[in-house]
Amino acid sequence: MVVVMAPEATQDEIDAIVGLVRSAGGDAFVSRGVTRTIVGLVGDVDAFEALNLRSRAGVLDAVRISVPYKLISREHHAARSVISVGGVPIGPDTLTVIAGPCAVESPEQTLAAARMAQAAGASLLRGGAFKPRTSPYAYQGLGEAGLRVLADVRAETGLPVVTEVIDAAGVDLVASYADMLQVGTRNMHNFALLQAVGAAGRPVLLKRGFGATVEEWLMAAEYIAQRGNLDIVLCERGIRTFETATRNTLDISAVPLAQRLSHLPVIVDPSHSGGRRELVLPLTRAALAVGADGVMIDVHPEPKRALCDGDQALVDGDIEDIATAIGVLAPLMGRVLTRPAARDGVGAAVAP
Amino acid sequence: MVVVMAPEATQDEIDAIVGLVRSAGGDAFVSRGVTRTIVGLVGDVDAFEALNLRSRAGVLDAVRISVPYKLISREHHAARSVISVGGVPIGPDTLTVIAGPCAVESPEQTLAAARMAQAAGASLLRGGAFKPRTSPYAYQGLGEAGLRVLADVRAETGLPVVTEVIDAAGVDLVASYADMLQVGTRNMHNFALLQAVGAAGRPVLLKRGFGATVEEWLMAAEYIAQRGNLDIVLCERGIRTFETATRNTLDISAVPLAQRLSHLPVIVDPSHSGGRRELVLPLTRAALAVGADGVMIDVHPEPKRALCDGDQALVDGDIEDIATAIGVLAPLMGRVLTRPAARDGVGAAVAP
Amino acid sequence: MVVVMAPEATQDEIDAIVGLVRSAGGDAFVSRGVTRTIVGLVGDVDAFEALNLRSRAGVLDAVRISVPYKLISREHHAARSVISVGGVPIGPDTLTVIAGPCAVESPEQTLAAARMAQAAGASLLRGGAFKPRTSPYAYQGLGEAGLRVLADVRAETGLPVVTEVIDAAGVDLVASYADMLQVGTRNMHNFALLQAVGAAGRPVLLKRGFGATVEEWLMAAEYIAQRGNLDIVLCERGIRTFETATRNTLDISAVPLAQRLSHLPVIVDPSHSGGRRELVLPLTRAALAVGADGVMIDVHPEPKRALCDGDQALVDGDIEDIATAIGVLAPLMGRVLTRPAARDGVGAAVAP
Amino acid sequence: MVVVMAPEATQDEIDAIVGLVRSAGGDAFVSRGVTRTIVGLVGDVDAFEALNLRSRAGVLDAVRISVPYKLISREHHAARSVISVGGVPIGPDTLTVIAGPCAVESPEQTLAAARMAQAAGASLLRGGAFKPRTSPYAYQGLGEAGLRVLADVRAETGLPVVTEVIDAAGVDLVASYADMLQVGTRNMHNFALLQAVGAAGRPVLLKRGFGATVEEWLMAAEYIAQRGNLDIVLCERGIRTFETATRNTLDISAVPLAQRLSHLPVIVDPSHSGGRRELVLPLTRAALAVGADGVMIDVHPEPKRALCDGDQALVDGDIEDIATAIGVLAPLMGRVLTRPAARDGVGAAVAP
Repeated sequence: MVVVMAPEATQDEIDAIVGLVRSAGGDAFVSRGVTRTIVGLVGDVDAFEALNLRSRAGVLDAVRISVPYKLISREHHAARSVISVGGVPIGPDTLTVIAGPCAVESPEQTLAAARMAQAAGASLLRGGAFKPRTSPYAYQGLGEAGLRVLADVRAETGLPVVTEVIDAAGVDLVASYADMLQVGTRNMHNFALLQAVGAAGRPVLLKRGFGATVEEWLMAAEYIAQRGNLDIVLCERGIRTFETATRNTLDISAVPLAQRLSHLPVIVDPSHSGGRRELVLPLTRAALAVGADGVMIDVHPEPKRALCDGDQALVDGDIEDIATAIGVLAPLMGRVLTRPAARDGVGAAVAP
Repeated sequence: MVVVMAPEATQDEIDAIVGLVRSAGGDAFVSRGVTRTIVGLVGDVDAFEALNLRSRAGVLDAVRISVPYKLISREHHAARSVISVGGVPIGPDTLTVIAGPCAVESPEQTLAAARMAQAAGASLLRGGAFKPRTSPYAYQGLGEAGLRVLADVRAETGLPVVTEVIDAAGVDLVASYADMLQVGTRNMHNFALLQAVGAAGRPVLLKRGFGATVEEWLMAAEYIAQRGNLDIVLCERGIRTFETATRNTLDISAVPLAQRLSHLPVIVDPSHSGGRRELVLPLTRAALAVGADGVMIDVHPEPKRALCDGDQALVDGDIEDIATAIGVLAPLMGRVLTRPAARDGVGAAVAP
Repeated sequence: MVVVMAPEATQDEIDAIVGLVRSAGGDAFVSRGVTRTIVGLVGDVDAFEALNLRSRAGVLDAVRISVPYKLISREHHAARSVISVGGVPIGPDTLTVIAGPCAVESPEQTLAAARMAQAAGASLLRGGAFKPRTSPYAYQGLGEAGLRVLADVRAETGLPVVTEVIDAAGVDLVASYADMLQVGTRNMHNFALLQAVGAAGRPVLLKRGFGATVEEWLMAAEYIAQRGNLDIVLCERGIRTFETATRNTLDISAVPLAQRLSHLPVIVDPSHSGGRRELVLPLTRAALAVGADGVMIDVHPEPKRALCDGDQALVDGDIEDIATAIGVLAPLMGRVLTRPAARDGVGAAVAP
Repeated sequence: MVVVMAPEATQDEIDAIVGLVRSAGGDAFVSRGVTRTIVGLVGDVDAFEALNLRSRAGVLDAVRISVPYKLISREHHAARSVISVGGVPIGPDTLTVIAGPCAVESPEQTLAAARMAQAAGASLLRGGAFKPRTSPYAYQGLGEAGLRVLADVRAETGLPVVTEVIDAAGVDLVASYADMLQVGTRNMHNFALLQAVGAAGRPVLLKRGFGATVEEWLMAAEYIAQRGNLDIVLCERGIRTFETATRNTLDISAVPLAQRLSHLPVIVDPSHSGGRRELVLPLTRAALAVGADGVMIDVHPEPKRALCDGDQALVDGDIEDIATAIGVLAPLMGRVLTRPAARDGVGAAVAP
């Protein structure tokens, strides 16, 4: 942290800052300039923040320079992590496709979507049993019945299950069915939920809040990590901007950026960011080429009848294009497409 | 809802849309133009949304024209509502000031802040016992001990208490101490929490999400209302934009806009939007002049020692300026400054 | 400027930075911390920027701390400026209303609008002869014929004229008719135009770009000032955000902020920011209460026939409300409403 | 265009709308619903806009449904265009790399950068002689001397030249040296400049304004086209959002979107959007994979000494990585990497 003193700051005011920092267990170094004096701080930045240095007499500004997250930071953990989900790895040497319906509607629809997911190259099945919807009058999901459907489809297809949790109180129930817990974009700042999934003993898929900076996204991951769970996968899904031609603006630069700041894997959701079916294929290619560790895609056997986000779901005719793009781009990026673990429980990452 | 057909749409495709709408219990009217045909829909818009009309053959777009919230809409409830909090009214004829410390730190600090709040003209005391913080390493609040402090200060000062709930599981505990439950900006999309406060039997202060549109904010209020609780006050507190000179951008236009769309009272938080002490007074004046039904202000007896948001808290020297501004602007806007209810429990709105 | 060295920076790399800064005529102070070293720079920041310090070996970041504008900065000119437009002052002790039609359409319409402007309390007439429109197919203005209309209406009413320039080549022509040159929001970054109005010998009204930060707005003013013209008035008119319920989001906080950073007057355009007639009155009140030095308002005798922005123009019935609000709020803010200069050319600021 | 009447609209008000539309040469179709009536309009939308229908009695809203640009729209020109720049094609079957220094500083630096550009696979040389800078104190370019340097380097290397115009008055001068005129992000709304390049007889590279929607970007292209110049290439270069970790947010989705709405080629600038050297390679890969028709990249022989944007310029060591990525991805996307035309003036697109 660097404290910038006001031009008119007195020697006593500068001394007061130095004294405060030292009393908080840190050290301070004073640089006197012609018009300003700068105080460099060394030590625990959180302790310094608690001193409210910006409000002190003679202080113009205080600038943080160290990253505010630790456990998930690459500064302290240079190697990129591999997270295992039901035996399927997500990490720097593989490409993992997660696919499935936005919402679980019925056993038949979910199984059909899972078959589409497999055809697209997926090794993990996504599907929502609890849906956080903007309108209280929109479809809210099947609840536990939906979790049972997902478990049945997993038994049938061998695909481990990723599904959303929307409330701290429901984490244990969802964790008893799912292989990976998804925290959605609207809940990225739901700290009680972050803490609950941090203690749930399951890997977590943490979507970026559509109004959250990359730093806040990493801080949310730190909340989970702080409860002892470092099995976290970050998912970029678009941010809210002034542009209205797409549902959200996919922040493709956030992928290499987050990979540089954190050791956690980073995947992309090209379905929700664009919100339009015809954008899913080009955005999937862009995600793979930018270096994402995986993608998460909406598929639906009959999008016209979908109870949630049908506008963006891929249909049968699109699946082959996606599979081809993935098959070509994965090796080009030095990655092996993952496959679901064999029934005897051993995970695998093999060429398609 | 209006369905816009593609230029190349066939008669069969148009007929199919009409048939779908009628099968969903609605009615459809076809307008044929030279290059396009438009179908106007009458009936239950949510039922139409479930038809996924945008994905149907021959459809270019489908545009909603009716507001998607009902219980809180002014369309169905033209008179603006008055909400009573511990006997203190918030509504169109009064001006209500809520003030207090961002976080409850100690009995002494809270009582001193409450006295400042009273001096500023406040009739309600705010203070956080549970704090949602971006960093897991930041101060998280005193928890239930903080609630007890608030209750004690209420007993001492007569000021009803507004405090934040951050998790559905904690709503009953907070409701047992507080006169009004605050849902914070990061939780505006936490639907489990919205439903819980909807059933808690206490008025709710709903802050706008910093990444949420006015429509989404009203939809969040609808979630609460749908559980039977219409005692909701909306609070504009700034949105996230590209401008970095202020913490957030106070969307002052949202106040008259929300008052026009909903019958609920709308107040402004000038402390969190600007994030700078010197902006609190001008933004308070702007809020009153734009027609807000109240303001919520951070005060702290010693901002330099504040454990949360000290940069924006008012200090003793500012209080008189705020009280003067409120005293002058309230009557100008045709409003009476509210006072806390007398101890016998009868609320009152009287001139200062 | 502060240079933050990377944790692994060597002594040679640190010495290299110090040497570079000194060779550029500055001085550098090194603060060694446990994990990082910080170099504080004193001297000409622009010279330092040219050194590209961020790209140097061992450098993590370089942070500017001094404001990048000088002539318009309040740091070097503490008293707030008063700008005179055809004898009408705009400054800290007065309140100046600029009103008129968005576009000059005919002599009759312009004169009728000028009479409405006077009734609303205006002492300056606005009206566009050259209109920058997003669509090449939209109405582009009357050109020089429109300037002549404005001059005629000025002769008739005594109201000095504010009108827009949209191209450096057209500045001299417009300056030969107008009392004040307006640079519109889409041209705030048109540096050739800024330089041309800087040399035109007329006061300038500089609207904030809807995508520009407060700092960039002030830098645009610095471009004008650098050509020797310090008669600049800043106009906040709303920024582009994710909110679509209003045309733009009025950044009301930018008013006190810009007044604190620059000595130039700051006014507000409540018509273009909201883009809705019913928001003009509340936003005007908010602008006055936040401390703006003036407002600029669209009026039109027949908004339904307006060729430009009719949706936001005030009509006769609104004028009285605006005049009342201004009459009440001006003295409350310690300001005198300005009046046009008498025909003998002496400006005046008198109570209404 | 669709007009939505208010619930309380009378028959007379509806008839008035129909009459107005017919008097403007259009036709109107009325759909009566239970709570609302909708009027569908057929005819010239610009004529309808001039009627100010939103302000008419009984009208709730008026929604445009037809695209507001025509000449560049794909609706009327289904085949995607190929633009030729000094014999080098930019279009759907090729991949064109434009590279060079942000600013022309000297003959030696420009020639060295051009050699780097060639090594990276470039067939067009970029370089700024006139620089639009946010600060009046920053380096503004060499002016005409810089244009002569570019022409000399073109003679030496055979690379046609792309360079920026910043003022309508300077277009002829720049056009006398350059093969393609670049309109920068800050000038996208400078309509006088758009009209001037529309008449200059040279192909135009139109960068998207960082605060502009895709629709406004296309409208700016329409301004150029309306003057008779359809040789326009669109360049996505990042938009301004709340995210501060990157200079701008590359809106990668805008590429397929603009290609779908317009027949013009679309390229990407990965240097300015990220603003960080380490993001250029991943964003270049993403741009190619999403389907861009080309990329424009900053290179500099000595970024540490660059007078403009040195932080983002590629250096020698990066060039090979870029060339490899382009060489692999172009054929994968079904494209041939373009080469400069032979000296006898015949352009060519051949495999590398």
